[in-house]
Amino acid sequence: MSPINIAIVGVGKIVRDQHLPAIAANSDYKLIAAASRHGVVDGIDNFKSIEAMLEAVPAIDAVSLCMPPQYRYAAAHTALQAGKHVFLEKPPGATLSEVADLQALADSKGLSLFASWHSRYAPAVEEAKAFLASTKINSVQVIWKEDVRHWHPNQEWIWAAGGLGVFDPGINALSIVTHILPKQLFITAATLEFPENRDAPIAASITFRDADALPVSAEFDWRQTGHQSWDIIAETDAGRMVLAEGGAKLSINGELRKDTPEREYPALYERFAEIVKAGKSDVDLAPLRHVADAFMLGKRKFVEAFHD
Amino acid sequence: MSPINIAIVGVGKIVRDQHLPAIAANSDYKLIAAASRHGVVDGIDNFKSIEAMLEAVPAIDAVSLCMPPQYRYAAAHTALQAGKHVFLEKPPGATLSEVADLQALADSKGLSLFASWHSRYAPAVEEAKAFLASTKINSVQVIWKEDVRHWHPNQEWIWAAGGLGVFDPGINALSIVTHILPKQLFITAATLEFPENRDAPIAASITFRDADALPVSAEFDWRQTGHQSWDIIAETDAGRMVLAEGGAKLSINGELRKDTPEREYPALYERFAEIVKAGKSDVDLAPLRHVADAFMLGKRKFVEAFHD
Repeated sequence: MSPINIAIVGVGKIVRDQHLPAIAANSDYKLIAAASRHGVVDGIDNFKSIEAMLEAVPAIDAVSLCMPPQYRYAAAHTALQAGKHVFLEKPPGATLSEVADLQALADSKGLSLFASWHSRYAPAVEEAKAFLASTKINSVQVIWKEDVRHWHPNQEWIWAAGGLGVFDPGINALSIVTHILPKQLFITAATLEFPENRDAPIAASITFRDADALPVSAEFDWRQTGHQSWDIIAETDAGRMVLAEGGAKLSINGELRKDTPEREYPALYERFAEIVKAGKSDVDLAPLRHVADAFMLGKRKFVEAFHD
Repeated sequence: MSPINIAIVGVGKIVRDQHLPAIAANSDYKLIAAASRHGVVDGIDNFKSIEAMLEAVPAIDAVSLCMPPQYRYAAAHTALQAGKHVFLEKPPGATLSEVADLQALADSKGLSLFASWHSRYAPAVEEAKAFLASTKINSVQVIWKEDVRHWHPNQEWIWAAGGLGVFDPGINALSIVTHILPKQLFITAATLEFPENRDAPIAASITFRDADALPVSAEFDWRQTGHQSWDIIAETDAGRMVLAEGGAKLSINGELRKDTPEREYPALYERFAEIVKAGKSDVDLAPLRHVADAFMLGKRKFVEAFHD
């Protein structure tokens, strides 16, 4: 099979750090174009808009959409209408309904739509899932605390309505938790803390349960300086499981079981090639559905203004 | 077929006004029990909890759950586990994920789950849908403005987190709009107005579009005194369609096309009997998904405190 001719739309930090190296290292792909209002990828044709790119480069088979979520639907719709497979960075959209609409369009055209969740491909995630399936889980605690000034400096879109605020990293935790726990979760209570000058929350505290009343809690906070935490801790009949560093490192009862270098984006692009070849889609909306549920069910609390 | 032995859970105003008369008038049902913390239905066995009722009255085939949405999942789960069909008042739950969980449970047990949307059964809704399918729609405007003090006096649950505030009536509009428009909608912007002393919004302004960029707007307001509005207005190539009074009355270019007495709840119970007999479920989450999307994507604005 000849390589998938792929194009990137929305050339920013995540594209340079992750997408370009992952595509370059995978012989299933050939990167042939990019479209971006500001960014440029060296050595290929660059365009200011996806429309201009699709018209000029008909050989494109698939597009990877990496612009902020508020702009993703229009680009995805244009690409699907033009007969291209679509890779969506996380979160897959600004609303659940728009992604459901894209899914229906992809299905009707026999194209592959991929709602990617990179944290699900962190190295220790599958081993954590296998461990949890082997025992009885008694409680789960998610602690996702990072310094927004360090990780998202001056990213205005992330603070705008639809940018999700602290749920932008938090949804990574949710993408792991919904993958490794045996039963579907749902939120029973949430508190969202909004800086008085922002439309998106800077912190959130969430309580979940499943059908068996498993207690699951999550603390998301963007005000963390010093040690950064991306941990999922489960108390089980077989002891305490700690999935740390965003899914990279697994310990059980303090014993390190897995600690290998991460290769999330290479794994994402392997998965996308797999579904394109198989002629199917991979769109799991559970992480975004939990975020929407948290906003709908949650109490709002106002905290001091945030300035970058 | 012998009648469906049905029980009511959560005996309040909507049960007395709508459910009891609808059940009494339908020979497909026999009402045999009720469970409620405070309310009582005369002439049948009454219990304080659904658990006590299900244990004492094994002949129950189906339950109709009419308590506030924040308490609905636990009761629905108990009923499904006990092998009973379930009718959910609107909204079907406090979160999307819990309803998805109930749907999976109902499917696994071969039971019928009905997420009821009473406004979809308003008398002129089907005719409005047929009209819109016959022409080109150019814009749609939803105006749902009512006096909360009149319609929901001292209903504290409606103002609590998860009670949805003005989206409790607004979701009726959304249940109609999502039914009568030809394509799936999604929200592109929203503003939610929260009284400074409440956890749920008193007003909301929403902009939607569909894949064809049809402009759809909705104004929900609970501060309306005087004339109450529950109108859906569509500008089309065949003229202006006004679906007024919550779906009861249809006019096209000022000419009244339909104005018959409403029988929403009788129609809901007919539908529930139909799906129970057919061994299937009817769970459309689109209206609740739009509400969750509005909370997730919407800007929050604070307005003066609300006191009943």
